Amino acid sequence: MTERVREILSWYGSDNPGTLTNLSRLLNHGRLAGTGKLVILPVDQGFEHGPGRSFAPNPPAYDPRYHFELGIEAGCNGYAAPLGFLEAGAREFAGEIPLILKLNNHDLFGEEKDPDQATTGSVKDALRLGCVGVGFTIYPGSAHRLEMYGRVRALAEQAKRQGLIVVIWSYPRGSGLSKQGETAIDVTGYAAHIAAQLGAHVIKVKLPSAHIEQEAARKVYEKEKVPVGSLAERVRHVMQCAFDRRRIVIFSGGPAEAEETILSEVRAIRDGGGFGSIIGRNSFQRKRADAVRLLGQAIAIYRGEMK
Amino acid sequence: MTERVREILSWYGSDNPGTLTNLSRLLNHGRLAGTGKLVILPVDQGFEHGPGRSFAPNPPAYDPRYHFELGIEAGCNGYAAPLGFLEAGAREFAGEIPLILKLNNHDLFGEEKDPDQATTGSVKDALRLGCVGVGFTIYPGSAHRLEMYGRVRALAEQAKRQGLIVVIWSYPRGSGLSKQGETAIDVTGYAAHIAAQLGAHVIKVKLPSAHIEQEAARKVYEKEKVPVGSLAERVRHVMQCAFDRRRIVIFSGGPAEAEETILSEVRAIRDGGGFGSIIGRNSFQRKRADAVRLLGQAIAIYRGEMK
Amino acid sequence: MTERVREILSWYGSDNPGTLTNLSRLLNHGRLAGTGKLVILPVDQGFEHGPGRSFAPNPPAYDPRYHFELGIEAGCNGYAAPLGFLEAGAREFAGEIPLILKLNNHDLFGEEKDPDQATTGSVKDALRLGCVGVGFTIYPGSAHRLEMYGRVRALAEQAKRQGLIVVIWSYPRGSGLSKQGETAIDVTGYAAHIAAQLGAHVIKVKLPSAHIEQEAARKVYEKEKVPVGSLAERVRHVMQCAFDRRRIVIFSGGPAEAEETILSEVRAIRDGGGFGSIIGRNSFQRKRADAVRLLGQAIAIYRGEMK
Amino acid sequence: MTERVREILSWYGSDNPGTLTNLSRLLNHGRLAGTGKLVILPVDQGFEHGPGRSFAPNPPAYDPRYHFELGIEAGCNGYAAPLGFLEAGAREFAGEIPLILKLNNHDLFGEEKDPDQATTGSVKDALRLGCVGVGFTIYPGSAHRLEMYGRVRALAEQAKRQGLIVVIWSYPRGSGLSKQGETAIDVTGYAAHIAAQLGAHVIKVKLPSAHIEQEAARKVYEKEKVPVGSLAERVRHVMQCAFDRRRIVIFSGGPAEAEETILSEVRAIRDGGGFGSIIGRNSFQRKRADAVRLLGQAIAIYRGEMK
Amino acid sequence: MTERVREILSWYGSDNPGTLTNLSRLLNHGRLAGTGKLVILPVDQGFEHGPGRSFAPNPPAYDPRYHFELGIEAGCNGYAAPLGFLEAGAREFAGEIPLILKLNNHDLFGEEKDPDQATTGSVKDALRLGCVGVGFTIYPGSAHRLEMYGRVRALAEQAKRQGLIVVIWSYPRGSGLSKQGETAIDVTGYAAHIAAQLGAHVIKVKLPSAHIEQEAARKVYEKEKVPVGSLAERVRHVMQCAFDRRRIVIFSGGPAEAEETILSEVRAIRDGGGFGSIIGRNSFQRKRADAVRLLGQAIAIYRGEMK
Repeated sequence: MTERVREILSWYGSDNPGTLTNLSRLLNHGRLAGTGKLVILPVDQGFEHGPGRSFAPNPPAYDPRYHFELGIEAGCNGYAAPLGFLEAGAREFAGEIPLILKLNNHDLFGEEKDPDQATTGSVKDALRLGCVGVGFTIYPGSAHRLEMYGRVRALAEQAKRQGLIVVIWSYPRGSGLSKQGETAIDVTGYAAHIAAQLGAHVIKVKLPSAHIEQEAARKVYEKEKVPVGSLAERVRHVMQCAFDRRRIVIFSGGPAEAEETILSEVRAIRDGGGFGSIIGRNSFQRKRADAVRLLGQAIAIYRGEMK
Repeated sequence: MTERVREILSWYGSDNPGTLTNLSRLLNHGRLAGTGKLVILPVDQGFEHGPGRSFAPNPPAYDPRYHFELGIEAGCNGYAAPLGFLEAGAREFAGEIPLILKLNNHDLFGEEKDPDQATTGSVKDALRLGCVGVGFTIYPGSAHRLEMYGRVRALAEQAKRQGLIVVIWSYPRGSGLSKQGETAIDVTGYAAHIAAQLGAHVIKVKLPSAHIEQEAARKVYEKEKVPVGSLAERVRHVMQCAFDRRRIVIFSGGPAEAEETILSEVRAIRDGGGFGSIIGRNSFQRKRADAVRLLGQAIAIYRGEMK
Repeated sequence: MTERVREILSWYGSDNPGTLTNLSRLLNHGRLAGTGKLVILPVDQGFEHGPGRSFAPNPPAYDPRYHFELGIEAGCNGYAAPLGFLEAGAREFAGEIPLILKLNNHDLFGEEKDPDQATTGSVKDALRLGCVGVGFTIYPGSAHRLEMYGRVRALAEQAKRQGLIVVIWSYPRGSGLSKQGETAIDVTGYAAHIAAQLGAHVIKVKLPSAHIEQEAARKVYEKEKVPVGSLAERVRHVMQCAFDRRRIVIFSGGPAEAEETILSEVRAIRDGGGFGSIIGRNSFQRKRADAVRLLGQAIAIYRGEMK
Repeated sequence: MTERVREILSWYGSDNPGTLTNLSRLLNHGRLAGTGKLVILPVDQGFEHGPGRSFAPNPPAYDPRYHFELGIEAGCNGYAAPLGFLEAGAREFAGEIPLILKLNNHDLFGEEKDPDQATTGSVKDALRLGCVGVGFTIYPGSAHRLEMYGRVRALAEQAKRQGLIVVIWSYPRGSGLSKQGETAIDVTGYAAHIAAQLGAHVIKVKLPSAHIEQEAARKVYEKEKVPVGSLAERVRHVMQCAFDRRRIVIFSGGPAEAEETILSEVRAIRDGGGFGSIIGRNSFQRKRADAVRLLGQAIAIYRGEMK
Repeated sequence: MTERVREILSWYGSDNPGTLTNLSRLLNHGRLAGTGKLVILPVDQGFEHGPGRSFAPNPPAYDPRYHFELGIEAGCNGYAAPLGFLEAGAREFAGEIPLILKLNNHDLFGEEKDPDQATTGSVKDALRLGCVGVGFTIYPGSAHRLEMYGRVRALAEQAKRQGLIVVIWSYPRGSGLSKQGETAIDVTGYAAHIAAQLGAHVIKVKLPSAHIEQEAARKVYEKEKVPVGSLAERVRHVMQCAFDRRRIVIFSGGPAEAEETILSEVRAIRDGGGFGSIIGRNSFQRKRADAVRLLGQAIAIYRGEMK
């Protein structure tokens, strides 16, 4: 147990030892084991965007076993997916990579201006599948957000009692925001803060832009000269918003991007004090060797082995 | 136990032996026993479309015993129906054909653009009636779909704990789709994928057309040159979407059709790697002898005894 | 146990001794211990208004430990916050300051004319975190108010059974009111009364203006010559509305204000027979030393050590 | 919060902050607040031995309020009693002294060689009465002990989940022991260890004699030269048995004794590293002034104010 | 994941992936990780025999943290202990060594010819403490055995549903056996078989003697010439009894022994196809360095690094 992991665990004083054990399993797995940094492989894209759109660019990824293997081979800390994908590999890969069961999901059959999520798994499912934790998406900005917060928190209470960790994907979206506002720095910080207040152990947000969405926030950011010019500065601000760096926040980029873009984002996360990356489309939509190499480079940057 | 059935069972590693036992009962019953192929007789038409419309073309079919007898005589793998129909024959035909209790149903008393389903049975009902599994319909495309997914998954969790199998009829419908989109190839693949992610063991979809509904999907299908020209190719693509052929998918045609149409669809399912057919109206709306002959031909095609 | 605290406890004759014990803990903690007066530190601003807007003026306040320390150092009676903030310090500061878990919260992702609140904590959470009570916000004036009253009361029933106290933030807001009406004297008194009728032990309202919002009320106020000219008179009237001073009511000011404004409000609360202040933004958005001095002065006024 | 109390709380890493809060309330109350030492007043004598025998020597002690007042006046850390006694004063003395609800009791209507205990209260009772914890007696040595351990542990699990502390009175008694063995040093250490293994936060045992009861133990004590000659040495050994001093153990003497005997026992507890005394009969069977003086002297010894 | 561990997991086809995950955690931890062999440190001796008798030979072992450290330092696969001992270290050592919560315990306060066990923990305790499994003792031979089997199996059912593993200590004892019979080869094999039939994943028995206790068994053993002359042969026979080596069986020796005796027993376990050792008294009653060396040698023998 490294000092850094011990320090991180110390921030979660209200959790039982079971939850700390599962958190330490996540932090002590893969090539980033013990560093306090994480790279997580999430594959809910098939549910969220449709299987053809998600996997046709790299057809082996239609097979649920592919993602277990990719996460293991690349040395990721964990693999997060909906019920069906985990059920399809949990026995075969039992104990080989920490699993996070996504307990809610959304599809693209509807053009809702105020999206919601379906509950697609349970805490009991997570235990029977051997997961270290459960995950949820919330949509700050949606008219359904208050109800979502309530559902997520109730399931999170159950999960914590059973010694599982809680991961919240906080994705601002809905009629309460402009399109640009979804990744605005103030909104992203706010989204991370809400997830932390709902009791998340690990928070996932998108990398923020320099745009400020809410007028009342803008006044304060300008008056207080909150530095948000560079991506690293924005990551640092999000970390502040997440209990002053005392909650684990990991970042995703956007849709498929060039390798160099991704790696420069990883460097900004590192420089801003972020805890790591969650890389979905940019891994499983590449050919396996390319994905392993890209994830390996991200890991190398977090390990300080590569600039 | 054939190698093929053993292989199929191996895909369901998160299920308990009870569920595997029931799945093997389905796969090892009837004239397709052991082949890994299935022809299932579903009769929820009376509930879904009204009894006169469903059974007047072949009045003996008003009698619930008729469908048990038809399924048995034709050598189907199983028979699926709502609560009342199964209750009306389960004692008399106990042990003669695997039963699937449809746990939700919809009627035509309303012209909803966003249909939903009533919960019309329970897992306990399925156990007391000796069923091998339970079935559900979901409507991807309906504004109620997220709530439907949640209800289905919760009942599926119960069913699996008790050793039952879960069959999902995934029927895209509702305001999130054009009429043509209901059977679009991208939508059908997506619908099969969602059912698989919700934990279905057996998935039932309609045979897809070559239409592509969602713009974001079209771009990928075109760029990646996903072959969807022939029906067999489309079946193959749907199978990919269902965990790369590691979930059982069976197909239905549309409304009453000519025999030859049906059989050529069966050949396309076979050629595309589908697992079989679910033939309702096209069986019970024909005279019994015709239905038995038609089902027998479909079975013969799947058995490789007929081209 | 002072006579005054004993008297206050005597007003809560339907509560069990567990609730009285926790109420006495709140009344007997900090520099106002035993006086029957309270100064409470509430920090749900991060959730309600966003973290940047709340904490950028005083960055150490991003850290959840900061607020525990501030409440302890300033000698407040208690500290109230949402789940995440309490979870992040409850072990480290166990037993050092009475805690109130805010069980519902609202954010600013939406411009609802009729705001509602998400349920963000449970009575069980309050017990496992060692809280003396739970808190809720209601919005008299919102179209959702009746449902909010129902939810709050149901949770309050649970809380009382477990010996916890119930604090209600009663904030008139929504389509049923004019903007000016939100702090009108008749509305504020009404809001306090509703909270008392819902069973609150401690009620938190905003300092009222002399505006009278509801015509029917105005007639009576004018006819009966209810004195509402000075702030102290208005506080006195709110206290009447709260069961003729037999319920604890504490008051907040508005957004960040000058020190002298705040202290003159404290004097009006004292003169009007109010029980104290709940000071959020005006404490944690100041530098720590300034906040401690300001809270100290408010306490000194309530203690009669300062005019 | 003193360093010593903080250190003690750190030993209970598997408990939630609620339990730590209640433990800190016990450790921070009365004249020993903050020292890490405790003097607790237990009054279950009326139930255990009969009221006349218990209270006739000091008739005011028939009144349940008497014991609250005695505990408060003497500056004890807490007061422990059965349901009825606590119900009779919990409202009147709410918040004035930490309460421990004894959840099981035994009477003298029977001369069992293998005593058992009746369950006479619940965790819910403890919450509604405002207690910091619950207490149980176990009888290692009784033929019923295994069942007692099971009942106590199950209730303790409930109590801990609700944030209460668990106190176990571990009183060897029954057919598995000689009379002399009930206070034997090996048996007392063993009894303390069992209570700790059952998850007690605070353990209460009798002051041990130098007798060694179990032959197998005697061999080891002699071979390893475990020092048990003086009372302080025996206290030290019991503390070792209680997780090497990482569990709070408090000691009682026997039946009514001379003041000087009691104080010399207190000195031995102090010298042996014990956490304090639980003084029942020797306080409430004396006249109030005498009892207050005696308890005061015990406290003074623990505080180092008196030799 | 080694081939051997994969093979072992394949024997537990009725368990869910959660249980396989926890079993793989046990098999993949410590210096024997991946070999399929195990050395487990059990410390319930304090409860079972008394703390003085258990820990006086090596006083640092009174401290519950000592055993966590010993298990970690020696590279054991896991550490098994009663509730109190695990509670006292589970937070501090979260994630550092797989834990097994012993759910029942027995003490020496009684000379029962038919011993029983108290239930001293729950499956929920195991989850909140982050354990990989739960453990139980049964006493085949005791008049209480049938009830014990029932209690253990019911708790095991719960544990398996939550993804935990089940370890059974099968210790023949009681009026149904002679003293010599407790370790008889027929009885030991029988005890292992009963544990396997009760659904244990891991079985712990004592090393058997060549004595045959039951006459009916003796006839068959003699007729079939079951080889039980050497210790390795007897281990091999016990493995046969445990589902022909398809259940994990580990062996303990008796009371404190010479190092060479222990190591020659380890060799016999290895030669007989046993899965490993559970070494309690012979580790924690030695000085730490000696214990680490001894456990290291046992591990080296199992690893094939030492003869």
